[in-house]
Order: sequence, then structure tokens, then C-alpha cells
Amino acid sequence: MSRNLRIVLVHPPHESDASQRAGALQAGLIEAGYELVASLPADIRLPEQIARLLPDMIIVDAESDARDVLEHIVVATRDERRPIVMFTEDDKTSSMEAALEAGVSAYIVAGLKPERIKPVLNVALARFRKEEKLLHELRDTKHKLAERKVIDRAKGLLMSRHGMSEDQAYQRLRTLAMNKNLKLAEVAQRILDVEDLLG
Amino acid sequence: MSRNLRIVLVHPPHESDASQRAGALQAGLIEAGYELVASLPADIRLPEQIARLLPDMIIVDAESDARDVLEHIVVATRDERRPIVMFTEDDKTSSMEAALEAGVSAYIVAGLKPERIKPVLNVALARFRKEEKLLHELRDTKHKLAERKVIDRAKGLLMSRHGMSEDQAYQRLRTLAMNKNLKLAEVAQRILDVEDLLG
Repeated sequence: MSRNLRIVLVHPPHESDASQRAGALQAGLIEAGYELVASLPADIRLPEQIARLLPDMIIVDAESDARDVLEHIVVATRDERRPIVMFTEDDKTSSMEAALEAGVSAYIVAGLKPERIKPVLNVALARFRKEEKLLHELRDTKHKLAERKVIDRAKGLLMSRHGMSEDQAYQRLRTLAMNKNLKLAEVAQRILDVEDLLG
Repeated sequence: MSRNLRIVLVHPPHESDASQRAGALQAGLIEAGYELVASLPADIRLPEQIARLLPDMIIVDAESDARDVLEHIVVATRDERRPIVMFTEDDKTSSMEAALEAGVSAYIVAGLKPERIKPVLNVALARFRKEEKLLHELRDTKHKLAERKVIDRAKGLLMSRHGMSEDQAYQRLRTLAMNKNLKLAEVAQRILDVEDLLG
């Protein structure tokens, strides 16, 4: 599973990726069998580079100022979430909370030891997948609830304004949906939109 | 925030809490300003002890066999979730996945250094709170969806079997709910139950 995981390393613009610390991390990643596809500074070009490289995981190495890199990371993962691991020496609670808020799956303070890289990445990946599942379930449930509300409102409107029974209103929605090749909720929304327009 | 966090330590029944490793963890916790309320073996009495001590966090120190302790931890936190941090040398993927599945907020392999305890616990706590918020939101949304379905089914039943309009059906449910001092969904469920019984 962790074989051939494609990783993009990100560092603050003012921290070199040729430092001893950065070198140890890069060596540790390659040693552990990961594919290091790029080492990039966190700047305005990061989102576009991430979108092009499509890494399986982003590892941020920010010795200090962990918050500095978050801004670009957030933009780079807004549309397509990816597991993010952050190694830092910044133990400020505010930095840590900002990182979690930004979607970081693992915030590792003072824990950058080559032999720990693999378990840390494995845990981060498993946690990311678990959270993704939860988020998808939440989005799905919210969506169903919203659809149901729209359909109910459209049915109610057909019943009150057009004197239909509930069954007739439902059948009308179904027929419209089939004819237009739309989902029931989409047809319902269109009916509500038109009624809004016409008052 | 982290001051006076009340912590219960848990270790596998066959690992002593008087080992050098366990001693270093205990010293590190006290040094970092946490209140260590008990050190307990993971056995059948654990759930009852956790329920009595009500710790803010559970720290599991399982040098090997991380999975061994999970069974009792799961029972102990089933009704009332608590942040759980696990320090271990067990880097098996299966153990790690079982731990996350059991609700462990932080699974730390080979990372037991006194100076790292505090940031690790802070991150685990923040993560636990974030996940709790997500889980509550999901539970809440599912509940609303379920209520809506029950109310709709009850309304439909009143309309089809008792010849009411949608508005009449809804008003009937509301009146019943007010008279019985129940929620709309509860009244709706009772109506469905009775109709089920009477066929």
C-alpha cells in the first residue's frame, strides 16, 4: 500500500530544501520506499504545481513558522483534498490549531526521525481516509435532506396553487423529471424558481 | 487548557507500569503539568474504572501488542467517547488500523520522548474535538432526515387512509403533538406503529 506512494515535499520559501534537516527527511522518504516527485517552496505557484503533479500525499517540512505555509496549502487542496503531514519544531497551540483547521492529517512536533517516517505516514493516511469517509457521509446526508426539503416544498406548491392531491403532485414531478431527464429534486427546484419569479 | 488535564494511563495486563519505559512516561506527564489520576491494566474492570474516574484523556502505553488492549478500551469509551493517545513500538499496519477503528486519536510509534508528550497530547485533543464536532453534525443531520421521513410517511398515511388534504394531515399531527407534549416526529412514529399493528 505504501509502496510507490507519490509524495510532494513543501517547505517555507525562506527555508532551504538543501539543509541538513531537509536532506534527512528526503533520504528517509526514499529509504522507506516512497517516490519523491518534487520539493517545492510554499508560494503562489504551489496550487498549480500540486494540480499538475497530483501527489498521493503532501509533506510539509516547516522547521519554524508552521503557519506561514498553510495559506498556499489550503488553496492547493481546497477542491481536491489530499493527506497532509506536517513536520515542524513549532509547538505553539495556535499554529497547531491553524494546521488542523487547514486540513493537516498529522502535525508532528520535533518528531522528524528517519525510522519514524513510515509509521507516521501510514497513520496519517489511514486517518485521512477515515475522515474522508465521514465527510462524504455527512455531505451525502445533508444533500439528501436538502433534496427532500425541495421536493416537499414543490409538492406543497403544486397542491396549494394548482389544486392537486399529494399523489397527483408527486406523479407530476416524476413525469416532469423523466421527460426532462432530470432528478426529482432538480425538477422541484425549477418549479420553485419559476414560482419565485412569477410571484 | 492543557493544565490540569486529568489523565488515566492504561497498560497491557502483562506489561508492568513499573518498567523504565512506563516510569519515563509517568514522569513526563507530571513534568508537563498533567494530573495522573490512575495507572490501570487493560482488563475486564477497565470500563467501570473509567466510568468512575471520568478522565479527560486516556493514554495507552503498549510497548508491544497494541491490539491486546483495544477490546477493553472500546467498551470503556463506547457510551462516552474520550480522547485516546496510544504510545507503542508496534508498527504493524493491522494494529494501527484497529486502533484508529477503535477511536484512538493519536497512534504514536516509537515516539515516546518526554519533551514530545505535550505537543502530542495537544494535537490529539484538538483532533478529537474536531472529529467530535463532525460526528455530532452527522448524527444531527441523519436524525433530521429520519424525522422528516417519518413525518412524511405519517402525513401520507393520514391523507390516503383518512382522506385528509396535506394541510389537514399536517395540522392533525401538530395538534396531536401539542396535546401529547411530544415532538412531531414522535407523534408521526406512533401513528405509523398503530397502523402497522392494525394492518
